Amino acid sequence: MDFEPGPLLKGINNPDDLKRLKEADLEALCKELRQYIIDVVSVYGGHFAASLGVIELTVALHYVLNTPYDQLVWDVGHQAYGHKILTGRKAVFHTNRVYQGISGFPKRAESIYDTFGVGHSSTSISAALGMAVASHYKGEKDRQHVAVIGDGAMTAGMAFEALNHAGIEKSNLLVILNDNCMAIDPNVGALKEYLTDITVSKPYNRFRDDIANVLSKISQIGPDALGLVKKIEKSIKGTLLKNSNLFESLKFRYFGPVDGHDVKRLVKIIDELRNIPGPKLLHCITVKGKGFALAEKDQTKWHAPGLFDKITGEIKKSASDKPVAPKYQDVFGHTLVELAEQNDKIMGITPAMPSGSSMNIMMKAMPNRAFDVGIAEQHAVTFSAGLATQGMIPFCNIYSTFMQRAYDQVIHDVALQKLNVVMCLDRAGIAGADGPTHHGAFDLAYMRCIPNLTVAAPMNEEELRNLMYTAQLEDKGPFVIRYPRGQGVMPDWRRPFKELAIGQGRKICEGEELAILSIGHVGNEVVKACISLNSDGIFPAHYDLRFVKPLDEELLHEVFRKFDKVITVEDGCLQGGMGSAVLEFMADHDYHAKVIRLGIPDHFIEHGEPNQLWAECGYDGAHIVATVKQITASRKTNTMAG
Amino acid sequence: MDFEPGPLLKGINNPDDLKRLKEADLEALCKELRQYIIDVVSVYGGHFAASLGVIELTVALHYVLNTPYDQLVWDVGHQAYGHKILTGRKAVFHTNRVYQGISGFPKRAESIYDTFGVGHSSTSISAALGMAVASHYKGEKDRQHVAVIGDGAMTAGMAFEALNHAGIEKSNLLVILNDNCMAIDPNVGALKEYLTDITVSKPYNRFRDDIANVLSKISQIGPDALGLVKKIEKSIKGTLLKNSNLFESLKFRYFGPVDGHDVKRLVKIIDELRNIPGPKLLHCITVKGKGFALAEKDQTKWHAPGLFDKITGEIKKSASDKPVAPKYQDVFGHTLVELAEQNDKIMGITPAMPSGSSMNIMMKAMPNRAFDVGIAEQHAVTFSAGLATQGMIPFCNIYSTFMQRAYDQVIHDVALQKLNVVMCLDRAGIAGADGPTHHGAFDLAYMRCIPNLTVAAPMNEEELRNLMYTAQLEDKGPFVIRYPRGQGVMPDWRRPFKELAIGQGRKICEGEELAILSIGHVGNEVVKACISLNSDGIFPAHYDLRFVKPLDEELLHEVFRKFDKVITVEDGCLQGGMGSAVLEFMADHDYHAKVIRLGIPDHFIEHGEPNQLWAECGYDGAHIVATVKQITASRKTNTMAG
Repeated sequence: MDFEPGPLLKGINNPDDLKRLKEADLEALCKELRQYIIDVVSVYGGHFAASLGVIELTVALHYVLNTPYDQLVWDVGHQAYGHKILTGRKAVFHTNRVYQGISGFPKRAESIYDTFGVGHSSTSISAALGMAVASHYKGEKDRQHVAVIGDGAMTAGMAFEALNHAGIEKSNLLVILNDNCMAIDPNVGALKEYLTDITVSKPYNRFRDDIANVLSKISQIGPDALGLVKKIEKSIKGTLLKNSNLFESLKFRYFGPVDGHDVKRLVKIIDELRNIPGPKLLHCITVKGKGFALAEKDQTKWHAPGLFDKITGEIKKSASDKPVAPKYQDVFGHTLVELAEQNDKIMGITPAMPSGSSMNIMMKAMPNRAFDVGIAEQHAVTFSAGLATQGMIPFCNIYSTFMQRAYDQVIHDVALQKLNVVMCLDRAGIAGADGPTHHGAFDLAYMRCIPNLTVAAPMNEEELRNLMYTAQLEDKGPFVIRYPRGQGVMPDWRRPFKELAIGQGRKICEGEELAILSIGHVGNEVVKACISLNSDGIFPAHYDLRFVKPLDEELLHEVFRKFDKVITVEDGCLQGGMGSAVLEFMADHDYHAKVIRLGIPDHFIEHGEPNQLWAECGYDGAHIVATVKQITASRKTNTMAG
Repeated sequence: MDFEPGPLLKGINNPDDLKRLKEADLEALCKELRQYIIDVVSVYGGHFAASLGVIELTVALHYVLNTPYDQLVWDVGHQAYGHKILTGRKAVFHTNRVYQGISGFPKRAESIYDTFGVGHSSTSISAALGMAVASHYKGEKDRQHVAVIGDGAMTAGMAFEALNHAGIEKSNLLVILNDNCMAIDPNVGALKEYLTDITVSKPYNRFRDDIANVLSKISQIGPDALGLVKKIEKSIKGTLLKNSNLFESLKFRYFGPVDGHDVKRLVKIIDELRNIPGPKLLHCITVKGKGFALAEKDQTKWHAPGLFDKITGEIKKSASDKPVAPKYQDVFGHTLVELAEQNDKIMGITPAMPSGSSMNIMMKAMPNRAFDVGIAEQHAVTFSAGLATQGMIPFCNIYSTFMQRAYDQVIHDVALQKLNVVMCLDRAGIAGADGPTHHGAFDLAYMRCIPNLTVAAPMNEEELRNLMYTAQLEDKGPFVIRYPRGQGVMPDWRRPFKELAIGQGRKICEGEELAILSIGHVGNEVVKACISLNSDGIFPAHYDLRFVKPLDEELLHEVFRKFDKVITVEDGCLQGGMGSAVLEFMADHDYHAKVIRLGIPDHFIEHGEPNQLWAECGYDGAHIVATVKQITASRKTNTMAG
């Protein structure tokens, strides 16, 4: 489908074209840019509301700044669609997030305007500060460095670390706080309340003027008053004003709040800020989903709504004629509440992903037992550890890729102390359209090297339920459950709970000649492969390991006593993953089978549909079939030759 | 050696004994406690200055609070010696940090008074909040939860994440900010400056009173003034005062600053704070090393000075008659400056470990090119990535165990973007007396699963120099160099630089019958073992892999073509480590040798001297010898049986 940009946008292929517009045309351009995003995203999907919220900011920044010489870092980056369209990617914007299309996030390899690859939150200030310090070192005094960061991302610790450092550097850094009171879900925490306070009360800068004003009037009353006024002025200037704003406490100059949808005002302010050296912060108030009424009203739903009718706002459902299996996320959410109703020690923790993880189900059902702690994975894990010391059983749900943020806390606070924290890693394995920043590729490897952990992956919905059930039983210690994004395989998933023995796998089918070992949901690809192979007269055995730690040694002994050819299949990295654990078992027990490991190879995997990427990585059903045939063929050749 | 505590301390075996003292005796007790720490640490070593700085705080907390029912979390924990002595560990305090003695940090398994195990910084607020929320949920209204955290630890992002969450919880949490302007090195960053501002300027609470006072005087001038005063009062109360303190911005009630060495005052304040619900912060000003003049003067040197003469303050050096090999740390520090003199793209980054890592050498020589960014590993890595985008070559030096804090940043900001950041992992492998929180056990496993990285470990000083030299040459991409704490093996280490081929190991000695593959410094244990074995007529080949990623495939083909028995040796975890990488190579190339992997087993290793712990883990020279003999003996038996 072709999309017709508006007349102004049509002529803009890069920021130089934009700069040729008259300032008076910018509002109209914003309208066109907004419409273009609505047109394309409604048909092709993608993140939505975030980009609509920063249209004016995007236009103003590229209008004023000399990008790419001036450097612009978008935090997280799902708000950067306008930026992409203005910087040469208008014609390919409809390939956004599609296999082999452009990335949903800024990406250095994609454009010189994408100064820093993003995807995970709260990296922008650190990165922009690095750029600014390098410029300062090189003597590039005229060069601007801008980080645009949301109020949600500002709650993450690393943003604070960066502010703390930037405050004492003399380099040219502008942080634009895009304050829309939202992460994907509504933002939470004390900082959000603080920002609201600033916004609803009299603007800070005007307040300063007012104080001066009133004091001057008082001083006119007479010489007595004058002395006192001087005293109070000195006091205020000396102590209070200097530190009267959170960001000024951290040695940033604070400006704002300003209306982030007033493009003319933004152009003026950003232009002025260019001439102010050192670290400064501009506080912009924006509305997520601005310009699309439904998105403004339900911002969480419209964060990334899928395909929709841009006129009626109806969100399109994918058609399916068979009973639909639920998402693992929903199974998690409902099961957690079911368990929590039976076990009053259970608590739920999510770092800013209530709707994504379905923790919102428990937050609604049991608001005093489920916590959204903000974008704060490190805190989420150690807070859970603190709860566990008191006999609670926290289910801390963190996307696999984001758990990388709390790796130390898993080791140091949970595993070392053997605390009963259940860590649920959502979106493990290939995550899909979000691409390399979001795949949960490494968790089996980075978790299984940690002592005291149990690390499991369910092959289907029932297994997820049973793992969750098992994890909350008495004294199970730290427990990791990783499962993928999206649909499972069991429409009929609400089955009674059953305790699973820790470290016990299961045989899915008997077989001859070779065995396939899988872990997690990808086992269903093995099942498909086996069905296809059986029809060709090949009968591999299939085992679901369930646990990558501890390994089911009994099962593995059975496998290696019986088979001298084994294929391991995992939706995770090959280096150090499940297959590698199996090799360690073999070495330790002196088995010498031929093992072929299928999984994510040793490079970053781009975005696309999971099945496309499984195929690319070589562990979808078809590739498993091919691998089995290759092994058995080589056997036949050998036999024939022998 | 026996240590005689003072008369008051003698009678105190737990906080109940302490509570029986009269308040008037507390000052004397503080003196005795301080002296006891000086007596023991001067003879047995350990952290020193931090504990001296919180003596009064420690006594006051246990005097007022009902520990262990009231819960006390010490951040980092090297300041908790007084706490340990007052809570039943006086008699064993001299075994502190000694193999099989008590831990240098609070540890749950050691005492019910140690509510949370610590070692890494900035976990205390999260943990104490978890405890407080659990108490709130259980309805334990009288229970206190206290986190004691230094101003250095407060710069880490996770402390901010915890404050942001705690500010909106209604639970009973007291954060005590132990502000001594120090981490191990002087604290840095905007927050430190802010805290100093509060402290040197008029105390905040008094300031509020003053404003009220002056305004009241002005209002007495006449009715004109009164109206204006009311206006200003309203403004101040409505906007400014509410947010006028960084911590109050985050919805904490702020108290202080107070003199942290005034034990009577502390007792009074802590007692009062018990009755104030919700989150609150007490800002204490303390002097690190308080009461030992030399330590007060040079706090970095006296953070953990080793053994010393408690009268003269002379620090004892360990005697040695052979020329002393340098510490790897010093080789790093001097080599970095040498390289930076030749290559103006090089920059140095440390998160608060200038003296520990020897980054202070570059900070002194090139202050505009070396940065201490505070306790902020996440920021340190992404800041380095930002520098690298501008063509700089940052050497980001982070202890292996602390790099766990920046794991996501390594993956998402450095590796994915293939940026030339050189990540130097100090204190890799067994770290010694600091114990399980500080061993760098996991880095080979957690790094080698990340695409695009080069991961290397030098076997000696010259190799470290050459790896550093190689890493800063054009376009080497992300480069990890891990090396241990302490002495190397080459007194004569300042040799000319030589480029090393990426992924190329080396043969240390030819041999027969079996090969030993090692990586890093532990290769020297293999060398020792080979010398011993040779004298018994056994001649293993020894290869130093140098790189765990990429693997030297040529070398490995040579090894597995020639040998069917291989031992791998690494100072790192067995799960997913170097040995595991070798097994993967074998599987991928259809080799079926017998492989015995030596390294850190799958449990947390306690504290002790590295050689004690290597022996415990079974990979010191003696155990390597034994392992080789076992293999070769079994061969002989087999041959004889055959």
